Amino acid sequence: MKKLKTAITLFAALLFINSVDAQSQAKSTISTERLTPEICKVKFANGPVNLIIPETIASLNETVKELSKDEHIKVVIFSSEVSGYFYNHFDLGQFPNFVKQTGADGKPLWVELVTNLSKAPFISIASIRGRTQGGGDELTLAFDLRYASKELAVFNQPEVGVGLFPGGGSTNQLPRLTGRDRALEILISADDYNADIAERYGWVTRAVPDDQLDKFVMTMASRIATFDKTALVTVKQQINAVAYPPESEILNSQIEFQKSLAWPGLSLRIPVLGKMLNDVGPLKVEKNMGYYIGEANKQLQKK
Amino acid sequence: MKKLKTAITLFAALLFINSVDAQSQAKSTISTERLTPEICKVKFANGPVNLIIPETIASLNETVKELSKDEHIKVVIFSSEVSGYFYNHFDLGQFPNFVKQTGADGKPLWVELVTNLSKAPFISIASIRGRTQGGGDELTLAFDLRYASKELAVFNQPEVGVGLFPGGGSTNQLPRLTGRDRALEILISADDYNADIAERYGWVTRAVPDDQLDKFVMTMASRIATFDKTALVTVKQQINAVAYPPESEILNSQIEFQKSLAWPGLSLRIPVLGKMLNDVGPLKVEKNMGYYIGEANKQLQKK
Amino acid sequence: MKKLKTAITLFAALLFINSVDAQSQAKSTISTERLTPEICKVKFANGPVNLIIPETIASLNETVKELSKDEHIKVVIFSSEVSGYFYNHFDLGQFPNFVKQTGADGKPLWVELVTNLSKAPFISIASIRGRTQGGGDELTLAFDLRYASKELAVFNQPEVGVGLFPGGGSTNQLPRLTGRDRALEILISADDYNADIAERYGWVTRAVPDDQLDKFVMTMASRIATFDKTALVTVKQQINAVAYPPESEILNSQIEFQKSLAWPGLSLRIPVLGKMLNDVGPLKVEKNMGYYIGEANKQLQKK
Repeated sequence: MKKLKTAITLFAALLFINSVDAQSQAKSTISTERLTPEICKVKFANGPVNLIIPETIASLNETVKELSKDEHIKVVIFSSEVSGYFYNHFDLGQFPNFVKQTGADGKPLWVELVTNLSKAPFISIASIRGRTQGGGDELTLAFDLRYASKELAVFNQPEVGVGLFPGGGSTNQLPRLTGRDRALEILISADDYNADIAERYGWVTRAVPDDQLDKFVMTMASRIATFDKTALVTVKQQINAVAYPPESEILNSQIEFQKSLAWPGLSLRIPVLGKMLNDVGPLKVEKNMGYYIGEANKQLQKK
Repeated sequence: MKKLKTAITLFAALLFINSVDAQSQAKSTISTERLTPEICKVKFANGPVNLIIPETIASLNETVKELSKDEHIKVVIFSSEVSGYFYNHFDLGQFPNFVKQTGADGKPLWVELVTNLSKAPFISIASIRGRTQGGGDELTLAFDLRYASKELAVFNQPEVGVGLFPGGGSTNQLPRLTGRDRALEILISADDYNADIAERYGWVTRAVPDDQLDKFVMTMASRIATFDKTALVTVKQQINAVAYPPESEILNSQIEFQKSLAWPGLSLRIPVLGKMLNDVGPLKVEKNMGYYIGEANKQLQKK
Repeated sequence: MKKLKTAITLFAALLFINSVDAQSQAKSTISTERLTPEICKVKFANGPVNLIIPETIASLNETVKELSKDEHIKVVIFSSEVSGYFYNHFDLGQFPNFVKQTGADGKPLWVELVTNLSKAPFISIASIRGRTQGGGDELTLAFDLRYASKELAVFNQPEVGVGLFPGGGSTNQLPRLTGRDRALEILISADDYNADIAERYGWVTRAVPDDQLDKFVMTMASRIATFDKTALVTVKQQINAVAYPPESEILNSQIEFQKSLAWPGLSLRIPVLGKMLNDVGPLKVEKNMGYYIGEANKQLQKK
């Protein structure tokens, strides 16, 4: 517990700027736009690099619950309002607040959110333009359909490179989509993947040329929105029964994640990553996550 | 039950021409040709658009049972004799007859057929040239190997677009082959897919240039036919144990399908689809299934 | 049992040269090279065609156990020292010795080896240059990551073409990676597959141009080797829980394999394959396995 507190304090110090940015926001990081009676767009904005903060999770969960009660809604498109980023990783400076977030039955709010998403009586579509990293990628894996900009989408699960366990569902979802070896490569390389490889691996549904992405997503959404809601939802339920990980697995991943906050490998890496963030600047590090994760670990090894 | 009867009556009226075509056929829609002592070809013909009728299911089941008893048979090739179509969807006008079809132990005959196919002591190969839609695609998913003409094969599961549940096994088979998101996309888009995307998704084993398809299939069949039958069958059984859905899942899908016959979304769509079939003509609708499913639902939404 | 002995005697006679080559080797077929404190290379050499012999399995198992105890080791690269071959099939002339190999708890030593590999607290990477056949391919399926030379890697599971059951784990691993149909095609065609198709099927993690393969593997290994060992191992364990076949399945495959040694289809094929090996020469047959398996079975059918 002391180690956990030390880790969190270090994160909080190192990632001060991002956290302050997030905290000072008056408005929610999540906003909704009703495109038609059947289609809603859920937009995420937490500039400059779209870190997920506790408010994001709480607002997303409330939004998903609200939209689930709306009998007219058939499709929900998830997109980003911040250039260069889709959903990015959790704001590490806010860990104490993430850990405190629990749902109605005491489960981690994150688990409640991804469960609500996977069971929602609408089709969720991710329109992925920009970097999708860490918890942001794990959220993306909980959406129903994933369409990625061929030129602008980049995927990275950096946790292992930081000394953490990727506990938001990627160890449960990825092997079911990509097979054992590719899931392992993604998670232990902590490196950047472009949309073409993500498509080949089955990590995303399709890679779409960027100038066609918006049209592709709207055409798909509009088509589905004319179909019968009962038919859509029943098919989703039946496919979930075969292919969605049981909630117990996702819960177990959360426990592994919380354990990993006390791993010595994390404490070792925080000062090195912190110095790098200071020297290089957080914007540049975020935009080249795969490279800088590698550099930081190389420096650590030389010591 | 009254709703089911109404739906069936409407279908029967709307698809009159197709049904009459089917009913008036003196000969079976299924014929067999023994190519060699080890290889049999099972040919399907129910022009003009190769709708599956109850006789098709009954004859296929008898054929599979017969061939399963023949100790010389190692490979069975399934092909179509009708240009432009492989196995198409069920003839909706014949629903009352489909529902009545039960096997020896009271199970739906359809479930008996796909179970018999998956357990058959021979290798079934689909040579897919033309449209493969609805129940026809679900039959295709029960074959062992699927080779699709790159230029001429088209796949579509239109059920959701009609307001029905795709209950012939696609919700069980597709997620195991393509992953959750792609299976969901296929079933809820009710749209046309070409052979290249079907191959990329893992929906078919391979897409083969049309002018090489026959040779490719015969070369594969002839090679396998020289191997030891016990070896072939044991491998098939062991792979089934890992990757074939349990029969209880396929049975459950049938129940969901029968429930879906009473969905209000179906009753709403039947008159619109019926008018379209009348206005455009059934041949044109069948050949452009994805497009017309979309158009009919758009019209419905405008009302 | 008499049939098994006959089969073994025939194999022993036919594959005399290979067996003698293997037996006469003074040094082990497995050698290790410590590249860095964190990375070890395990090299296989059993020229001329890299057949796996009992000593290979025993040495690999000891090596894996030793490296698993070394807390510094994070990555183990498996490669071949023999041009044209990665791990090839078992030396059939040594079957009596394979069957005798059991582990500490009486399990077949092969099952102990692949279990030890899958659970090892390091990441195993296969650098695949050359033919990977039969048991050699099944060993490759037990490694964590598989990188194949686009030009030089060739895969073949010839067992069914010989009249044997492929009992080293391929029926358990392949359907989980490639889907039911593609796994079946691979195993019942007993044919050669190049790296591009293997990549498309999900049989290997990536196909890499040959002149980039060594660099690609070393870059991946070096990167992973800077990460925290606990993080790497925990991710591997969690992914195994979702995607690695239970040991009972692998054990069952071994039982099926041992049964298959008594199949009449095997006894029928041994003299034909033996004559071909004599007439064509074993080196040429090994290098064109898919073709000669086909030719031998064609000759048998003509009789």
